[in-house]
Amino acid sequence: MIEITSLRTRAVRMEEHMRNAYISFAEMTGSIVEVETNVMRDGQPLVGRGFSSNGRYAQTEILEQRVFPRLKRAQPEALLDAAGENLDPFKAWDIMMENEKPGGHGERSVAVGVVDMALWDLVAKIEGRPLCRVLADRFNHGRMDTKVYTYAAGGYYYPERGIDALRDEMKSYLDSGYDAVKMKVGGASLREDLRRIEAVVEVVGDPGRVAVDANGRFNLEQALDFGRAIEPMGLKWYEEAGDPLDYGLQAELSEALNLPMATGENLFSHQDVRNLVRFGGMDRKRDFLQMDPVLAYGLVEYLRMLRVIEEAGWTRRRCIPHGGHSFALHLAAGLQLFGNESYPGVFQPFGGFGDEMTPEAGMFALPDVPGIGIELKSNLMELFQ
Amino acid sequence: MIEITSLRTRAVRMEEHMRNAYISFAEMTGSIVEVETNVMRDGQPLVGRGFSSNGRYAQTEILEQRVFPRLKRAQPEALLDAAGENLDPFKAWDIMMENEKPGGHGERSVAVGVVDMALWDLVAKIEGRPLCRVLADRFNHGRMDTKVYTYAAGGYYYPERGIDALRDEMKSYLDSGYDAVKMKVGGASLREDLRRIEAVVEVVGDPGRVAVDANGRFNLEQALDFGRAIEPMGLKWYEEAGDPLDYGLQAELSEALNLPMATGENLFSHQDVRNLVRFGGMDRKRDFLQMDPVLAYGLVEYLRMLRVIEEAGWTRRRCIPHGGHSFALHLAAGLQLFGNESYPGVFQPFGGFGDEMTPEAGMFALPDVPGIGIELKSNLMELFQ
Repeated sequence: MIEITSLRTRAVRMEEHMRNAYISFAEMTGSIVEVETNVMRDGQPLVGRGFSSNGRYAQTEILEQRVFPRLKRAQPEALLDAAGENLDPFKAWDIMMENEKPGGHGERSVAVGVVDMALWDLVAKIEGRPLCRVLADRFNHGRMDTKVYTYAAGGYYYPERGIDALRDEMKSYLDSGYDAVKMKVGGASLREDLRRIEAVVEVVGDPGRVAVDANGRFNLEQALDFGRAIEPMGLKWYEEAGDPLDYGLQAELSEALNLPMATGENLFSHQDVRNLVRFGGMDRKRDFLQMDPVLAYGLVEYLRMLRVIEEAGWTRRRCIPHGGHSFALHLAAGLQLFGNESYPGVFQPFGGFGDEMTPEAGMFALPDVPGIGIELKSNLMELFQ
Repeated sequence: MIEITSLRTRAVRMEEHMRNAYISFAEMTGSIVEVETNVMRDGQPLVGRGFSSNGRYAQTEILEQRVFPRLKRAQPEALLDAAGENLDPFKAWDIMMENEKPGGHGERSVAVGVVDMALWDLVAKIEGRPLCRVLADRFNHGRMDTKVYTYAAGGYYYPERGIDALRDEMKSYLDSGYDAVKMKVGGASLREDLRRIEAVVEVVGDPGRVAVDANGRFNLEQALDFGRAIEPMGLKWYEEAGDPLDYGLQAELSEALNLPMATGENLFSHQDVRNLVRFGGMDRKRDFLQMDPVLAYGLVEYLRMLRVIEEAGWTRRRCIPHGGHSFALHLAAGLQLFGNESYPGVFQPFGGFGDEMTPEAGMFALPDVPGIGIELKSNLMELFQ
């Protein structure tokens, strides 16, 4: 019988020194997890790997004190699918969440999400197929995208870097095959931010390929002022203008501004996402939802999120996950989402895809290896060894 | 200058074996924190103490890796009020939350809340007054309640205990001076729960002094069925019928049912509370809000919660905190809330007040000692020693 033989985690520091409008990343950490099994491949036990998306710190205590002990005391068959031929991440999810009260979705959602990623990696490796194919067959009527639209997220605030460095950064993304970029706003004066945006639009050549992200910094008045200032520019989207849980503010922006908006990376449960689509007044044809499939309890919860947005009349083609890694890329391909984020320059070694993977006109082809393909990213694999 | 000289935390196991409709508490833990200063009283350095409310587990990693290091690297004066004569928990709060992204309110909210409690304990001890007096002067125009209305929360599901034990438990609360009780529902069949409620109402003698708590267990249909079944009974309130973040469900219940409702213990930020009062359809004259001032980032955030509910037309007299301990009792007195929860029989040693404190007709008088009075509860103090 398939059994989990070892669960391991470690906290890892991300070496980054930039700021968004809200925080510095200088002390950001993340968790990596390995789930080892008794399934043998090429003489080695199969291992599933998972790691945090950036922004929410390592979760060693929740993993070691709550999540791992529940998985360890479960009977092996309680973690398997009906045929006993593979792990069942849905059953594992319920076990990981035993004796957890409802509400309070943060931190715990990261711990569970990292293990969920490792379990889906295993499920696909046991099937011997890329995760995107597994997801397409199980959750998307066999349909998938073989290439995924991806934009380059960067444009952070760095101490001692000016607009020229910002221009160079954006040019490097275009040179490496991206055709759209995202930059941070809200961490400087409106006038300074507008200068930064204009510089980036000039480099990219098309405002429709430049998104701006305020990381929840603005109050309603500031968010309206900023929105009105950029409204005529025709930018790609205006992201997280205000607090991510302030659905009233979002509804007022949706009413007042005529430009695409995006949010969701700081909503960590399907209940929160349901509130956003119920009360946030967002436009199903124009706006984007950016929930993070790792920070928010993993793919099992992400599928619930897709269900609640579809019940509200959205399609999954409006979803473009936060996270910038291969796990989200597989979801975008296998579930046919709008696309995926990418951090070509930052959040190393968590950001980015396989070493050999490069975009063409912003599109990434999925690698044909079993699982997520974490093994194709050498600086990430160094953490696991 | 006043300085924090030491920050200490420890994870503590709560020895309880009951269940509510959602979880077992058999493995529940909590955090205790001591904040030591260079302020001397009776030859000893003043120490502020804080501890978790029940239900959300210990937070050692967040405290030791994120919250404590930020407080330790702050300049001492950055933590003091303008006169330099006392600690300023508002400034400390901003420092504890440095480099924390918005949203994701859980776990972190407990870590910050436990330290916030210890800081307010210190503030009151430095002033040499009970915390309730400090709060009355600072945040309530000097007005306070000298006695606080408190109900006895219990009636959990225990393996191998029947209705007779439930009756005995409720009778023991009445005998010890409570006049109202709360019991758990949703963990058995509707028929069984109705029998349990009827038994308790019979013991208490008045349905208006019996509240029921489903701990978020029901979906909309179940919540409506249960609500309609108890509607004619005239119970005190119907608590957390559905998921705490499902404001749509709450609005439908509010519309369909004519009985007092209560919720909020699993909302851990003022943003979440604002959503509840904006979108939950609750009745400002009839319903109750039960936010927990420890699990939800402490008193600093609780004051923000009071502001957003008052902006929505509620009064703080509709607030009755979750938690069942002296910190919430001081808030209820000093801010003139509706009252406070009490766990006379459970969540030891965190539940309950000073050893000598007993209710009269459900009312607790506040002890006249500096700070919160944690030192008056001997089994809790054993943890700190």
